[in-house]
Amino acid sequence: MTPLLAALAGDAEVESLFTDAADVAGMLRFEAALAGAQAGAGVIPHEHADAIARACASFTPDWPELCADMARDGVAIPGLLRQVRRMLGAEAAASLHKGATSQDAIDTSLVLRLAELLDILDVRLALLGDALASLAARDGALPIMAQTRMQQALPFTVADKVAAWLQPLLRHRARLAQLRPRLLLVQLGGPVGDRASLGPQAADIAADLAQRLGLAAAPAWHAQRDAIAELGGWLALVCGSLGKFGQDLALMSQNGIAAVRLAGGGGSSAMAHKHNPVRAEVLVALARYAAGLSGTLAQAMVHENERSGAAWTLEWLTLPPLATAAAASLRLALALTSDLTFLQTARA
Amino acid sequence: MTPLLAALAGDAEVESLFTDAADVAGMLRFEAALAGAQAGAGVIPHEHADAIARACASFTPDWPELCADMARDGVAIPGLLRQVRRMLGAEAAASLHKGATSQDAIDTSLVLRLAELLDILDVRLALLGDALASLAARDGALPIMAQTRMQQALPFTVADKVAAWLQPLLRHRARLAQLRPRLLLVQLGGPVGDRASLGPQAADIAADLAQRLGLAAAPAWHAQRDAIAELGGWLALVCGSLGKFGQDLALMSQNGIAAVRLAGGGGSSAMAHKHNPVRAEVLVALARYAAGLSGTLAQAMVHENERSGAAWTLEWLTLPPLATAAAASLRLALALTSDLTFLQTARA
Amino acid sequence: MTPLLAALAGDAEVESLFTDAADVAGMLRFEAALAGAQAGAGVIPHEHADAIARACASFTPDWPELCADMARDGVAIPGLLRQVRRMLGAEAAASLHKGATSQDAIDTSLVLRLAELLDILDVRLALLGDALASLAARDGALPIMAQTRMQQALPFTVADKVAAWLQPLLRHRARLAQLRPRLLLVQLGGPVGDRASLGPQAADIAADLAQRLGLAAAPAWHAQRDAIAELGGWLALVCGSLGKFGQDLALMSQNGIAAVRLAGGGGSSAMAHKHNPVRAEVLVALARYAAGLSGTLAQAMVHENERSGAAWTLEWLTLPPLATAAAASLRLALALTSDLTFLQTARA
Amino acid sequence: MTPLLAALAGDAEVESLFTDAADVAGMLRFEAALAGAQAGAGVIPHEHADAIARACASFTPDWPELCADMARDGVAIPGLLRQVRRMLGAEAAASLHKGATSQDAIDTSLVLRLAELLDILDVRLALLGDALASLAARDGALPIMAQTRMQQALPFTVADKVAAWLQPLLRHRARLAQLRPRLLLVQLGGPVGDRASLGPQAADIAADLAQRLGLAAAPAWHAQRDAIAELGGWLALVCGSLGKFGQDLALMSQNGIAAVRLAGGGGSSAMAHKHNPVRAEVLVALARYAAGLSGTLAQAMVHENERSGAAWTLEWLTLPPLATAAAASLRLALALTSDLTFLQTARA
Repeated sequence: MTPLLAALAGDAEVESLFTDAADVAGMLRFEAALAGAQAGAGVIPHEHADAIARACASFTPDWPELCADMARDGVAIPGLLRQVRRMLGAEAAASLHKGATSQDAIDTSLVLRLAELLDILDVRLALLGDALASLAARDGALPIMAQTRMQQALPFTVADKVAAWLQPLLRHRARLAQLRPRLLLVQLGGPVGDRASLGPQAADIAADLAQRLGLAAAPAWHAQRDAIAELGGWLALVCGSLGKFGQDLALMSQNGIAAVRLAGGGGSSAMAHKHNPVRAEVLVALARYAAGLSGTLAQAMVHENERSGAAWTLEWLTLPPLATAAAASLRLALALTSDLTFLQTARA
Repeated sequence: MTPLLAALAGDAEVESLFTDAADVAGMLRFEAALAGAQAGAGVIPHEHADAIARACASFTPDWPELCADMARDGVAIPGLLRQVRRMLGAEAAASLHKGATSQDAIDTSLVLRLAELLDILDVRLALLGDALASLAARDGALPIMAQTRMQQALPFTVADKVAAWLQPLLRHRARLAQLRPRLLLVQLGGPVGDRASLGPQAADIAADLAQRLGLAAAPAWHAQRDAIAELGGWLALVCGSLGKFGQDLALMSQNGIAAVRLAGGGGSSAMAHKHNPVRAEVLVALARYAAGLSGTLAQAMVHENERSGAAWTLEWLTLPPLATAAAASLRLALALTSDLTFLQTARA
Repeated sequence: MTPLLAALAGDAEVESLFTDAADVAGMLRFEAALAGAQAGAGVIPHEHADAIARACASFTPDWPELCADMARDGVAIPGLLRQVRRMLGAEAAASLHKGATSQDAIDTSLVLRLAELLDILDVRLALLGDALASLAARDGALPIMAQTRMQQALPFTVADKVAAWLQPLLRHRARLAQLRPRLLLVQLGGPVGDRASLGPQAADIAADLAQRLGLAAAPAWHAQRDAIAELGGWLALVCGSLGKFGQDLALMSQNGIAAVRLAGGGGSSAMAHKHNPVRAEVLVALARYAAGLSGTLAQAMVHENERSGAAWTLEWLTLPPLATAAAASLRLALALTSDLTFLQTARA
Repeated sequence: MTPLLAALAGDAEVESLFTDAADVAGMLRFEAALAGAQAGAGVIPHEHADAIARACASFTPDWPELCADMARDGVAIPGLLRQVRRMLGAEAAASLHKGATSQDAIDTSLVLRLAELLDILDVRLALLGDALASLAARDGALPIMAQTRMQQALPFTVADKVAAWLQPLLRHRARLAQLRPRLLLVQLGGPVGDRASLGPQAADIAADLAQRLGLAAAPAWHAQRDAIAELGGWLALVCGSLGKFGQDLALMSQNGIAAVRLAGGGGSSAMAHKHNPVRAEVLVALARYAAGLSGTLAQAMVHENERSGAAWTLEWLTLPPLATAAAASLRLALALTSDLTFLQTARA
């Protein structure tokens, strides 16, 4: 998404979680924390762990080299490690990423950023819920005409309308609380996921690593992508509910319906009288986009054996825009709640 | 799906939940239970409720007429009620479907059948988990070569392999337990979802109705389809994990790999020596099919206002095949667990 | 799709092309024609070809057996051949399906039915184009209010409106004419597609076979599914254009807009005054359904090597409902053109 | 897609067509050419057209302002015109974008860049076809084992294998030639597509505008998105065929199969002996990604009335990554053809 399109349909806060810099920072946090945990377990010397932590803290990537390595290796870690090792003595360099595999670092970096994502989205869901509740408190008694199957049905009230927007959000928050412990797990399995390369203390190291990173420990889940796909489905649910909100607003703001007035609508290059429900429309677009992406992300569950480059790359292509779509949907929906005025369309 | 294709990729037990007969039976259960609840609340005479219950119990649809009405009305209920009312006196006929809307009956019929679906799938998930645990108990120590990114990686064991198939199933069962209370809700809202047509005792009637049907009560959710889309996502998760199982088996049974032998494989019309991993391949097909359908079902969240014929019809087109895909995947995976023999592919 | 749903959103004529009976009939046409071509080339005796033709003409499948074989083999041909061979002497039996592979028969059967499908759809596209042209001729001068971004824009005319519905149909017909020769090809490759099993006269046999079946000849395309996916995309285009037609009608028939009146609308079980734009809504549902299915069908292009059971089964799951969706969309759109009356919504 | 991921799965040349700068440049080309055509038709003074051309040629956007306007208006044109008009006197400013609507400029800018895209992709398809033909010429006689349904089938040759990769590419080029005239059309309709605002010489202006831009003229197609969706389908076809190529290479390069050796494979952070078929896997990922996006893009055909902000925004979200996926697939496939060596896997 380019900056122009992102101004309309993106979300700066969440996009910042999915930059290369944020990704590399997450991988370095993993490497430093792993070294710390391994030093704690006596697997590597503490001085190595300290040197690794310092290197990770002061590291600046050579991006062109990293990109070239990525193109060859299919993952960023081998190239990144080469660069970090240049900052370390040969011995400490051998303690870096010890017993780990690229996917351990890459998935853990992802999860660290997903933890931030979930916090952001949960706060916005709560804010949006509050905003809708305030609308209901303010205007709930106003009679409006319900519409079923695109036709006038019977009068009901703004309270009924808003309840149908609000209730799903409460469920989305409950779902989020339930999926969180399945998703926010450290990844540590070594080359083939059995932790053999991490030695007899592997479980302790994993537990310590997880704690250092604020995540939970679990067996390696390299080729078990159900929690990722579940997250994708949840993001599409959020977008879908907000797409329905947007669709309602676009329909209600039609000139012949006039059940809602939206401030801040878009101008037209040709028709000065137009007042377009731009943000409502974008909510619909994002819901459809996210629905499609969630289906594609679900395709990425079909890993081949212990790791699939194909399925994993597909995940990288689809999850960040899906997360951004959910964040943008919440951003837009929040803005719309400030700008909407209900109009009475039925007799009291 | 035709019977031939269903023999391969369908599931008779779950398909039977989504027949017209099962749908009509569910709608009649709703109508009889609603009348019972309304009689209990003193809203209609008990004799009417009894007459309605008897009529629903002995009713046989005129299917051609019902199809013709469906084509005009877009929903089966108006035509179905016309037929049921012919069995009732004029007064009892007026008590049938009193204060309800078509969607109340149709969605409740769906939910009644989804309750059965979830029971079936949960049992199969448990059975499959047991079968995989037995495989691990039997062959877990056998050394096999792990494969990452389509290449030999390092040796590990059958226990590691099976764990990666089994662990997601446990999570799927946990997810199912969590989504069940969001999904298994009676639908009762009246024409525009506010229950005004059901009178001042609407909440009591809804609670009694729910209890009679073994469901939970909740405010009407006519245009809030998040629990349906959530179910679709869950079904795709199940299919995805089993598609990964199938993909692994197909790869492991390649002649040059020979990490697994599958009994009961398919014959070829041209090559007698062939032994095709048919069920494993079908698991992959179903995972991809279900992933796509779940994305399309998520499109159906964008209801217009209080009810969208378009979004609702889209749900009808996508949810039944998605449910069948999950059931078929479990059926096939269970069969495969009986027929697979691991072969040692790495040194101990 | 059950009969009730098919009454709304199906199409009897096109569904009949995708029954098991039609599929088997197509496979038997292939086998008889192949034997005929091989007899013509002197590869099998003419008496065998005659016996095979007679057997194919009088054959009635043992469906339960065929289903059981399908479940094991993943394709219907091995079981079907076993059944047909019972009707033949041992020598003629050896001439049946000589040098062919299951996919040759199955794909050719599909293509024979797709040829019928394309004829049906092309006729309907032409009829719909005529019907829209008639509407434009009748009401084209009527001023109506154009709507952009869900808001009143400026007046234009019914002629402008209808042109936007009609022009894509003309392009769809042109596209159809272009894809036809890529799609309507006999499949004949033998087990691995190189025709080695068909002997030195393979090309002549393929050409004769194609001619007998009214198809074109081409090298085997077992694992080249681009023409199938192209067809899927085209079907989604047709559904998409008609979904836009349906969306417009549903919006124009809103009570507050009243730019069109639709006769034959659906009744409500709860609101006698309602007049629902059911067929217009179903057009939207089918467009979204077909869009999703076309994306899933495109997943089926990724065949593994010379034949993928997974990708091929995915095709079987997605192509028939996609074809039915296009046919149903055309059926519904045609009906709508008879039932719609434009209403003046702008000053002349 | 971030730079790191783009290094793996992106394409710099095609990404450059979809930057904001390229988009704005295309819109300015439209505005300058429109003014030129209107001056030619005597609708605006030649001096105005010259001033507009000069302003467009020297214009540098105030990007932050443009982004802010985009967020409000939903399209970039109103804000862009405000900025350009600051460079013009009041009279020439009134001649800028005269009679046009935002969509005229935005769609034409898109088409101008799609014209470049198609040229790039066509050249690459031709190069890839040549490269595959060279492989066949070099190694075609080598016997290799065909694999059907993931099992050894019968020997055939490298020529057979390569033919199955090459033939679809030839058809893709033929399809491209056929869709080109449907797609490469100027957009000029004015606010509601009827060109009324462009005056009696509208058709001449459109023809001249088209010629100035190297496009064809046609009636406005604001809400007729079939050619865009057709392009999306075609891009997914290209990706699908190359995903099949990648899938084959990944399977053939398995250690136990060894039918192909890929130079330039990816390294592992943990297993020095690994040689990962990274580019082959990325081809598979891109095919699945593109399949999903094409299905989502097809959803965008359902425009509401004369212009849908929702459907149009959905197009902006999906088409650029789809185009990039096709370009990246061709780039990777070309690189793979240089790096692959076939190994004999069957007896001659």
